[in-house]
Amino acid sequence: MAFSLRPVDGAFYQLFSESAQHLVKGSALLAEMFADGTDRAAKAKEMREAESAADRTTREIVQRVNKTFVTPFDREDIHDLAYRLDDVMDEMEKAADLINLYEVAEFPAEFAKQVDLIQRCAELTAAAMPRLQTLDVDEYWLEIGRLEKAGDKSYRRMITKLFGGQYDAIEVLKLKDVVDTLEATINAFETVAKEVEQIAVKES
Amino acid sequence: MAFSLRPVDGAFYQLFSESAQHLVKGSALLAEMFADGTDRAAKAKEMREAESAADRTTREIVQRVNKTFVTPFDREDIHDLAYRLDDVMDEMEKAADLINLYEVAEFPAEFAKQVDLIQRCAELTAAAMPRLQTLDVDEYWLEIGRLEKAGDKSYRRMITKLFGGQYDAIEVLKLKDVVDTLEATINAFETVAKEVEQIAVKES
Amino acid sequence: MAFSLRPVDGAFYQLFSESAQHLVKGSALLAEMFADGTDRAAKAKEMREAESAADRTTREIVQRVNKTFVTPFDREDIHDLAYRLDDVMDEMEKAADLINLYEVAEFPAEFAKQVDLIQRCAELTAAAMPRLQTLDVDEYWLEIGRLEKAGDKSYRRMITKLFGGQYDAIEVLKLKDVVDTLEATINAFETVAKEVEQIAVKES
Repeated sequence: MAFSLRPVDGAFYQLFSESAQHLVKGSALLAEMFADGTDRAAKAKEMREAESAADRTTREIVQRVNKTFVTPFDREDIHDLAYRLDDVMDEMEKAADLINLYEVAEFPAEFAKQVDLIQRCAELTAAAMPRLQTLDVDEYWLEIGRLEKAGDKSYRRMITKLFGGQYDAIEVLKLKDVVDTLEATINAFETVAKEVEQIAVKES
Repeated sequence: MAFSLRPVDGAFYQLFSESAQHLVKGSALLAEMFADGTDRAAKAKEMREAESAADRTTREIVQRVNKTFVTPFDREDIHDLAYRLDDVMDEMEKAADLINLYEVAEFPAEFAKQVDLIQRCAELTAAAMPRLQTLDVDEYWLEIGRLEKAGDKSYRRMITKLFGGQYDAIEVLKLKDVVDTLEATINAFETVAKEVEQIAVKES
Repeated sequence: MAFSLRPVDGAFYQLFSESAQHLVKGSALLAEMFADGTDRAAKAKEMREAESAADRTTREIVQRVNKTFVTPFDREDIHDLAYRLDDVMDEMEKAADLINLYEVAEFPAEFAKQVDLIQRCAELTAAAMPRLQTLDVDEYWLEIGRLEKAGDKSYRRMITKLFGGQYDAIEVLKLKDVVDTLEATINAFETVAKEVEQIAVKES
């Protein structure tokens, strides 16, 4: 592996970890939004702040990659990984916004399970970022793949429930919009994992 | 053209053909789902298997491109083409899932026509992949462009029908979700064709 | 900055300006669609023509970048900027199509405000393209960021209104589809601005 021979700028691993930590924070906020008696408007505001913080980290990575002579892996890949992490945050922020705006009295229990999956994805991603340095990331992206498959199954169950006749059309519209955004969040984690896999294959 | 001067790894053309063949299979499954008396759950399951097979081909391309010293065209372009082909499969799988889950008794006839377009796109794409070797792909991407325009027209007719007062809101929601996914499938084929066009322009 | 040392093909700045001018045209058409007594079908047709014209400009950029030996900035970035500008046009065309097809009698006043934001984005983008030559683009992408935040707020207000009980489910479906497409248009402008920012950071 060509990797260990390069003078490596360790700051990138630090920044990617920081970026993933924003996602851990965001997924925790999402989970809190489904708890009883939460002030959802307050949580949505916290989420917007978390999203701004994530934006700043992304910008820092992009500026550093363009100023650094020797990067630990391909410039293009650093850039793409930074933006793919940022995309996850954008989906989370959208989900929080919708949950707040739609004023749904009570979400079906399956929704919280989907958010559990999101939290596990965030934690796995945060744990994997420092391991980019040794390319010990196979177990990470395989596990994200498994969580994504679990998310798909859970998505299908939720859709079946939504259209089961229990909800009126306006409620279906609201709930489906939230479900779709939660699913997009998990898919965005999978896109991050595919980018990491590609970096590992290339560098190993 | 620099192309014929390079020692070419023919395996890539073979793998792209294989990738496009999964789309031919997927589009045939979609067509079967609209036939009378089909076991839609069984077809959706077959589609998930086709999607897994397509995933394996994509991974094989990505791993090969990262291990091969001389590639027939830009590494980045091989990579992008592999993922754009994979995106089509993801849309098809989503369409199959929704058609199964929504348990629509009868789809408007226009839906099957949209699937016809999808099948023609898949066959054109599969026929074009071996021709990447000689860059004889102009007729292919022009024809995909024409099919995409036909798809747009057909989409507009379907939307007009859906909102014509014949369907209740829940049915509109279900049918529109399927229509949008079929349209996204055709758009994904167009994105593949644009990638092929770009490769042809660059290499010729 | 390495920039001024290169023999620059000025045609690219000209073509990017042309590409952005199509967006100015498109956003004006969108605004006209919300005016009283407009022939929406005629405007949607004009939009489709504007989209075809934009496609031709995009293709010209892509072909030129692949034929030109020395480009003013990274080949990949020229390519990406061309396609990101084109993506905005596609969203605008989709919005125009939906506005026409859905035959909504009267749009809430907030919709026209969202289109105002889109027009300002288009004008800022068109004004920024010639300034790529001197990389004097910071004020541009910062302002697009501000407009995008304003768009988000306005989006939230519109969603609250749509689900406020005043509209039936079918109307909500139609109006939400339009609102989502207008929001996607603003997001597409932000993606252009991020691409421009990245070019500026890299080249400066």
